[in-house]
Amino acid sequence: MDALSTALFWLDYAAVAVFGATGALAAARRKHDIITFGFFAAITGVGGGTLRDLLIGAPVFWMHRSAPIAICLGAALVVWFTPRRIWPGQALEWFDGIGLAAYSVFGAAKALSFGIPPLPAAIMGVVTACMGGIFRDMLAGVPSIVLRPEIYVTAAALAAGGYVALVSMGLHGGLAMAAGFMGGLILRFAAIRWQLGLPGYRDS
Amino acid sequence: MDALSTALFWLDYAAVAVFGATGALAAARRKHDIITFGFFAAITGVGGGTLRDLLIGAPVFWMHRSAPIAICLGAALVVWFTPRRIWPGQALEWFDGIGLAAYSVFGAAKALSFGIPPLPAAIMGVVTACMGGIFRDMLAGVPSIVLRPEIYVTAAALAAGGYVALVSMGLHGGLAMAAGFMGGLILRFAAIRWQLGLPGYRDS
Amino acid sequence: MDALSTALFWLDYAAVAVFGATGALAAARRKHDIITFGFFAAITGVGGGTLRDLLIGAPVFWMHRSAPIAICLGAALVVWFTPRRIWPGQALEWFDGIGLAAYSVFGAAKALSFGIPPLPAAIMGVVTACMGGIFRDMLAGVPSIVLRPEIYVTAAALAAGGYVALVSMGLHGGLAMAAGFMGGLILRFAAIRWQLGLPGYRDS
Repeated sequence: MDALSTALFWLDYAAVAVFGATGALAAARRKHDIITFGFFAAITGVGGGTLRDLLIGAPVFWMHRSAPIAICLGAALVVWFTPRRIWPGQALEWFDGIGLAAYSVFGAAKALSFGIPPLPAAIMGVVTACMGGIFRDMLAGVPSIVLRPEIYVTAAALAAGGYVALVSMGLHGGLAMAAGFMGGLILRFAAIRWQLGLPGYRDS
Repeated sequence: MDALSTALFWLDYAAVAVFGATGALAAARRKHDIITFGFFAAITGVGGGTLRDLLIGAPVFWMHRSAPIAICLGAALVVWFTPRRIWPGQALEWFDGIGLAAYSVFGAAKALSFGIPPLPAAIMGVVTACMGGIFRDMLAGVPSIVLRPEIYVTAAALAAGGYVALVSMGLHGGLAMAAGFMGGLILRFAAIRWQLGLPGYRDS
Repeated sequence: MDALSTALFWLDYAAVAVFGATGALAAARRKHDIITFGFFAAITGVGGGTLRDLLIGAPVFWMHRSAPIAICLGAALVVWFTPRRIWPGQALEWFDGIGLAAYSVFGAAKALSFGIPPLPAAIMGVVTACMGGIFRDMLAGVPSIVLRPEIYVTAAALAAGGYVALVSMGLHGGLAMAAGFMGGLILRFAAIRWQLGLPGYRDS
């Protein structure tokens, strides 16, 4: 379990950095200034976890240590000082997929540890993974990922729901985490690779 | 009081279902996929009560029991599997009016029970009733109900404000609830029936 | 310190009034009705401080006293009953600059007093000062101040960051407040006067 905790600790910070970078890149696309870069990086990097903590009644995670917000601002600076073409859109999408699967599982695990029942806990995993990007898109005024048929929120739901279901069935926490993470990751990667989407509502 | 409590308990769940359905119908209108249906149903169904609970310092109501979010997801499934024409727009508006009046009174009553003074408590009633729909409209990118001259927020304000005023004057809680509920309901129904609106600001 | 506390107390209410008025004016620009005026005034006047209190784990400031929300609704009424031309856009911008600098310092000071470390505390100052206006713009569907190159968020960051840095270096709280306030105020006033902006991201 110790190696797993250490891995989770670093994956957590890595996810903040990756999501922060996608926020800064959204600002770069519209030629915003450095302050807007920082704002977008922070909202995207810590937004989902912030909403999760408020909902489950936990202290907001970046209020009592400086690292998460510092990582976001650092990601904004890195994006600011590098030309956009060195950020291959596709590569970033793969990294974002890792962050998505990791955050879904973490978010659900944190909710369970605060005594939240399975169904809302799984929803908290999806909130942690997806709301940062949704806040970023609302602020930027672009159609949010949740409005696109792309398999994105679905992958988060599979990761969080799978983890919670396995834990509820009595599986060891670490194994359930690994399984939920891998399930969400594979689904998201498949969706990027083959551009999978869900069918829309058809009025019959 | 016992019959009243029971009625309120079921009205509460009925309001979550009706608001959830209006969220799913907003997703249906734009041919979204099933995940987006669930997302919209949840945001619209529990969004207002969530903000109220965060503001008054109460545990978020759908975090410690699974029913509210399950009702929202169920409403999304029902809308998904039925053709849109069986959802008469007008009928849904009437149901929405009942939910609006009920939520305004409940929200204000919950705030009062947490020791919030009358004015902010009345505002909490309006927040409970209206913010779910406002979140839905912001996410969908359509002009929010609060930006239209229609009498909607006004009916919520009458229900919540009337209830709080009557309770503050010493009226029995159940009677004040019934009076606030009926006042908001009648105003909203009249607004739907005769398309009543408020005058806009006129620059003199 | 006593005269300073008294001054801060009144500055706080004055800032709520000024921000509330800018919210109501945004509603006036689009000929909204009186209910929308009140809604915009409240969101703009108390929105930033509300988010700050939720994040730092403090009771939301306008929940336990009625004055802040009453001031917002009062500001909405005043704007409603006066012709728009008596509200000189430029004059309001100067007042808004005072509110911006004051709120940045207050917000950071409140966060520090709740044991938040310096970096997130400075961010809380910026949140207090800027988020009300950002909520107003998102609701109104206009491009938010944080998306414009104008020096606005930057002035808030200077006020909040300057105050926190000086306090961390051991300076007396009142002096650090005055210095942060003056720094943010001068920068914002200079930005209004000479239309200063930050350079946008240039893809090299």
